[in-house]
Amino acid sequence: MRRVAVIGVGQSKFGELWDASFRDIVLSAGIEAIEDAGLEGREIEALYVGNMSGGRFLSQEHIAALIADYAGLAELHIPCTRVEGADASGGLALRQAYLAVASGLHDIVIAAGAEKVTDIVDKAMEILASGVDREWEVFNGATLASLFAMMARLHMDMYGTRAEDLAMVSVKNHRNAVKNPKAQFRREISIDVALNSPYVAEPLRMFDCAPISDGAAAVILASEEVARKYTDTPVFISASSQATDYIALSSRKDFTRMDAVVFAAREAYRKAGIGARDIDVAEVHDSFTIAEIMAYEDLGFAEKGKGAELIREGVTEIDGDLPVNTSGGLKACGHAAGATGIRQAVEITLQLRGDAGERQVDAERGLALNIGGTGATAVVTIFSR
Amino acid sequence: MRRVAVIGVGQSKFGELWDASFRDIVLSAGIEAIEDAGLEGREIEALYVGNMSGGRFLSQEHIAALIADYAGLAELHIPCTRVEGADASGGLALRQAYLAVASGLHDIVIAAGAEKVTDIVDKAMEILASGVDREWEVFNGATLASLFAMMARLHMDMYGTRAEDLAMVSVKNHRNAVKNPKAQFRREISIDVALNSPYVAEPLRMFDCAPISDGAAAVILASEEVARKYTDTPVFISASSQATDYIALSSRKDFTRMDAVVFAAREAYRKAGIGARDIDVAEVHDSFTIAEIMAYEDLGFAEKGKGAELIREGVTEIDGDLPVNTSGGLKACGHAAGATGIRQAVEITLQLRGDAGERQVDAERGLALNIGGTGATAVVTIFSR
Repeated sequence: MRRVAVIGVGQSKFGELWDASFRDIVLSAGIEAIEDAGLEGREIEALYVGNMSGGRFLSQEHIAALIADYAGLAELHIPCTRVEGADASGGLALRQAYLAVASGLHDIVIAAGAEKVTDIVDKAMEILASGVDREWEVFNGATLASLFAMMARLHMDMYGTRAEDLAMVSVKNHRNAVKNPKAQFRREISIDVALNSPYVAEPLRMFDCAPISDGAAAVILASEEVARKYTDTPVFISASSQATDYIALSSRKDFTRMDAVVFAAREAYRKAGIGARDIDVAEVHDSFTIAEIMAYEDLGFAEKGKGAELIREGVTEIDGDLPVNTSGGLKACGHAAGATGIRQAVEITLQLRGDAGERQVDAERGLALNIGGTGATAVVTIFSR
Repeated sequence: MRRVAVIGVGQSKFGELWDASFRDIVLSAGIEAIEDAGLEGREIEALYVGNMSGGRFLSQEHIAALIADYAGLAELHIPCTRVEGADASGGLALRQAYLAVASGLHDIVIAAGAEKVTDIVDKAMEILASGVDREWEVFNGATLASLFAMMARLHMDMYGTRAEDLAMVSVKNHRNAVKNPKAQFRREISIDVALNSPYVAEPLRMFDCAPISDGAAAVILASEEVARKYTDTPVFISASSQATDYIALSSRKDFTRMDAVVFAAREAYRKAGIGARDIDVAEVHDSFTIAEIMAYEDLGFAEKGKGAELIREGVTEIDGDLPVNTSGGLKACGHAAGATGIRQAVEITLQLRGDAGERQVDAERGLALNIGGTGATAVVTIFSR
């Protein structure tokens, strides 16, 4: 396996993009990435696309071919493949693209992620619930929010995590999003606003839940040798790991922990030859605030049960020792299901290149954690300057 | 890239499986493959699943995690990934699994394909049309059948292909299916029956169209070194190629030809170091009979415009020089969208191992062609003893 670098990144605005079609937002992200890399579209050798549910949101499967067609790649006849793992689809696309370059199969590959949800927003919650177990969970009345609410409740009971801790995650991520021109919610919220917002599924309130967003993101990966020709600031992927867990929460031993995250992180650290303490900046999957607290623990940033201490002590604030979700995260930058894993990679790349503008932090190594559903799929990617 | 072998194959029955759930049929194929390989489930290092539209047929995305959970693989926490390219999804899963082993990333990988369509059969045609361009084709009234009907009409006008030629493809594939215990339609039809069946989209009649089927298939791939430990009859994958074309038929230069097939086949022959004439047996994507005729041409078995001669002259009959669709093909074995690419690999493996029972042919090299929609995605795999 050879070294792989990110040589270009792009992202659409995230939010309720009523004026843009799926094709429009994918193209805007892809063109931005190609221009950022300074290459021509015809140099791309393969495309991987992460998309959760084009079938239900757009009545369109075969998403990779659709994008290739619209992006002018169809005449190249290059392999174009959609991968799906609920809202980990973007992370899976990134990993498949990474493997395609690392293995020597291709020199330049584009990984994109996209989801357009607002056109059918009245069914969006039900569609997003197709990422958990339909027969054993959804059919019996569970929603994504209610499953995460059970995780939050148990975490609170076992470890003393408080509603205030969850709210602080949301407040932090909103504060970061103010500095991100691509973010959906660019305004600060106070902890009181978060704590007085209505319950979605007790103990999770509105501000504990990421929004349903439209958005797309793209990264261009190249082998080290090729990367050196295109950029003086390549960002390397030191490790890419993927793990799976039981899809139904009821089958897991302990649902205050996501085993897929624990396994993927352990393997990623081993491959990169580093430990959790070596990470300088991270984007984690805060589809619900409790998921960010659990990520702190499952990624090894904190001991199990002590994740809330990081937010209480300001460690994960943008000026803390380990800034997390400088983009605003899923909560405030926006959660466009299949786009999220790629959007996280864009943010880490910008941070490591020094191109993160007002939200720039000092970092040599970054990590992205993208999960699907309640954690049945986890992808951990480690980046380095 | 190292050599990769198929060491185990399995498939469910194909057809209207009212008594079986999606989980049931996937499991039956997977267990048959694992038993055929003579290994234990815990030796599997990764899972790739081809599935076209779990989201619409089952209200279930995140299909790979679902299968891992139900198959007892979740506790292994191995990477499990769904890939999708309409009804080429199975072929894409096979190729990703092949690349994972060929690159040295994994030693033993399972590739599965599955679709359960009958539970929502009243919407099946509309759902399958999500494999072509929703905005530019389906929205304007096109169906899969009507798009292939246009291809057939042009092929007839340009090259003199006749309705009788198309019917002969159907008759052949039904005849082969009689000998396949897993096939959906195990009865012969006469050419008169085919030619007098009602039009679906002129000039395509009912017997020109593959059915909508439930089904699943699985293959286990291993590195050559590992394969030698498990079997005395490994079937090697000599080449695996994938290409993309415009998704909308109207964007293509000539729709009597599928450029993605031409490109993928050319690359596959080059990689395998052989030519079309070296293929002894093939499974091709006869979603409509015209697609089998076009496949003869685009794969190089016949010159462009002369595909019909192969069926007229009996070349592709089971006792001909180049038997095609010995399984019964999509037409008579059944077309369970995401399963098809894997089911084709199962058939070619059985043929090359000498395990094809009553439908056994004499073959050292086989080819499988799996396409998505009207050919925007094509996967060509070459197998050898």
